Amino acid sequence: MTDRWQPPQPGGSAAPRTATGKVLDVFRAFTQERPELTLTEIAHRSGLAMTTTHRLVGELAESGFLERSHDRRYRIGLQLWEIAALAPRGLALRELALPFLEDLYEVTHENVQLAVRETTEVVFVERIAGRRAVPVRTRVGGRFPMSATGVGLVLLAHAPMEVQEQVLSTPLPRFTTETVTDPTELRSMLAAVRRNGFAISDGQVTEDAVSVAAPVFGPDGDIAASVSLVVQGAGTRPASLIPTVRAAARGISRGMRTPGTW
Amino acid sequence: MTDRWQPPQPGGSAAPRTATGKVLDVFRAFTQERPELTLTEIAHRSGLAMTTTHRLVGELAESGFLERSHDRRYRIGLQLWEIAALAPRGLALRELALPFLEDLYEVTHENVQLAVRETTEVVFVERIAGRRAVPVRTRVGGRFPMSATGVGLVLLAHAPMEVQEQVLSTPLPRFTTETVTDPTELRSMLAAVRRNGFAISDGQVTEDAVSVAAPVFGPDGDIAASVSLVVQGAGTRPASLIPTVRAAARGISRGMRTPGTW
Repeated sequence: MTDRWQPPQPGGSAAPRTATGKVLDVFRAFTQERPELTLTEIAHRSGLAMTTTHRLVGELAESGFLERSHDRRYRIGLQLWEIAALAPRGLALRELALPFLEDLYEVTHENVQLAVRETTEVVFVERIAGRRAVPVRTRVGGRFPMSATGVGLVLLAHAPMEVQEQVLSTPLPRFTTETVTDPTELRSMLAAVRRNGFAISDGQVTEDAVSVAAPVFGPDGDIAASVSLVVQGAGTRPASLIPTVRAAARGISRGMRTPGTW
Repeated sequence: MTDRWQPPQPGGSAAPRTATGKVLDVFRAFTQERPELTLTEIAHRSGLAMTTTHRLVGELAESGFLERSHDRRYRIGLQLWEIAALAPRGLALRELALPFLEDLYEVTHENVQLAVRETTEVVFVERIAGRRAVPVRTRVGGRFPMSATGVGLVLLAHAPMEVQEQVLSTPLPRFTTETVTDPTELRSMLAAVRRNGFAISDGQVTEDAVSVAAPVFGPDGDIAASVSLVVQGAGTRPASLIPTVRAAARGISRGMRTPGTW
């Protein structure tokens, strides 16, 4: 899982930040690992002067985009969350897909995941997990490299060629001894995903988990998302899950073609 | 359901907008009713000059906070959604509550809702709906007046006194002939909610739906959220659902007290 936060580049050749850039940097200071921050921490992580940070955070808290907790820390506010709920690739996709994801969950009681691609990474937009289901390393709103997960393989296989080349030309992260890190092997896996209409990732993220994923296509025929089931490796037969996952993915694709829903 | 967007006030006595205020006004231009906008529409709805809008939208699209669709319309981007996923009262609450909500869904196959209060309104942070469930008027990220819904009655009953007085002193919206619009009657309903530990809203939002709601308390003992089941009015006995909803609400409250989860 990758931390979105990058330490600000001191000095350097970058153009001076605009007022908009400073606001976005305040938002970007918050991460999964650090969802609550003091003013000083926001200033440090955003690379802004303390006076600027004080003024910006004050305005953002006043408008509900940030919230202040009892112990004077700040966190992302509900106002930002409400606006973000309008992101078509976030909650709108999730709302459309939810009945199909719930069906998948009801018939399997396993982990159900829905993900989209953002640049060269996977972003999970929904996850339904049973108590008995195998533990997974994902969370809603979290990112993950594309090359190891089932949904990532599907999203990468149908991504524009330049995205595929970008991923294949950078070192592929290893999670287990089963993780595919050889670009040539990954390339032929992606071809198989396109040919077969699904992807299987067996023990490549965590030793004991198998993921079966299928593509969701938007109304323009481009890939829009990927849906997967993640099950305990031992004793399961992933092959038997393929039709179930593919049917759910086709159902969501069909939903996206209905006028007015997307 | 209320549209968050308010037309900009031309001229007037308001202080000039700051750079931060302009960025937030661009975000606020997007609503559930209008999730995709052209540059001209954003300028109009935010009350910004076209050149300013062009520059701001360009920066926001460049950074992924807005996305441009094929037909040159803009919409809220996944980058904003990822950051908003860190809002404790949004997805974090939802993640913590989800196992309990799924249990509620599995044992009833009815509408399950989780909501929080934002100023004087209800914001829904999760909704699980069966195909057979009665249609409801809510959506995730959507707002609703507090006085009519089950979750709203619970959130209002436990809100600070000044919030209660504010709601009681403004005209109460009517949805059906059953909607309570008399402040005195509402006041005694709120007292009953506090006394009983649950709220029932019968036909007050839509004629055929009954909502049973219970409070979720945060680690500080303050109300944090409300969970509800919404069922078809005819033939159901809401009283039988009360223990189920209350148990789920208590489970979520307990989860919020576990160190490190909240």
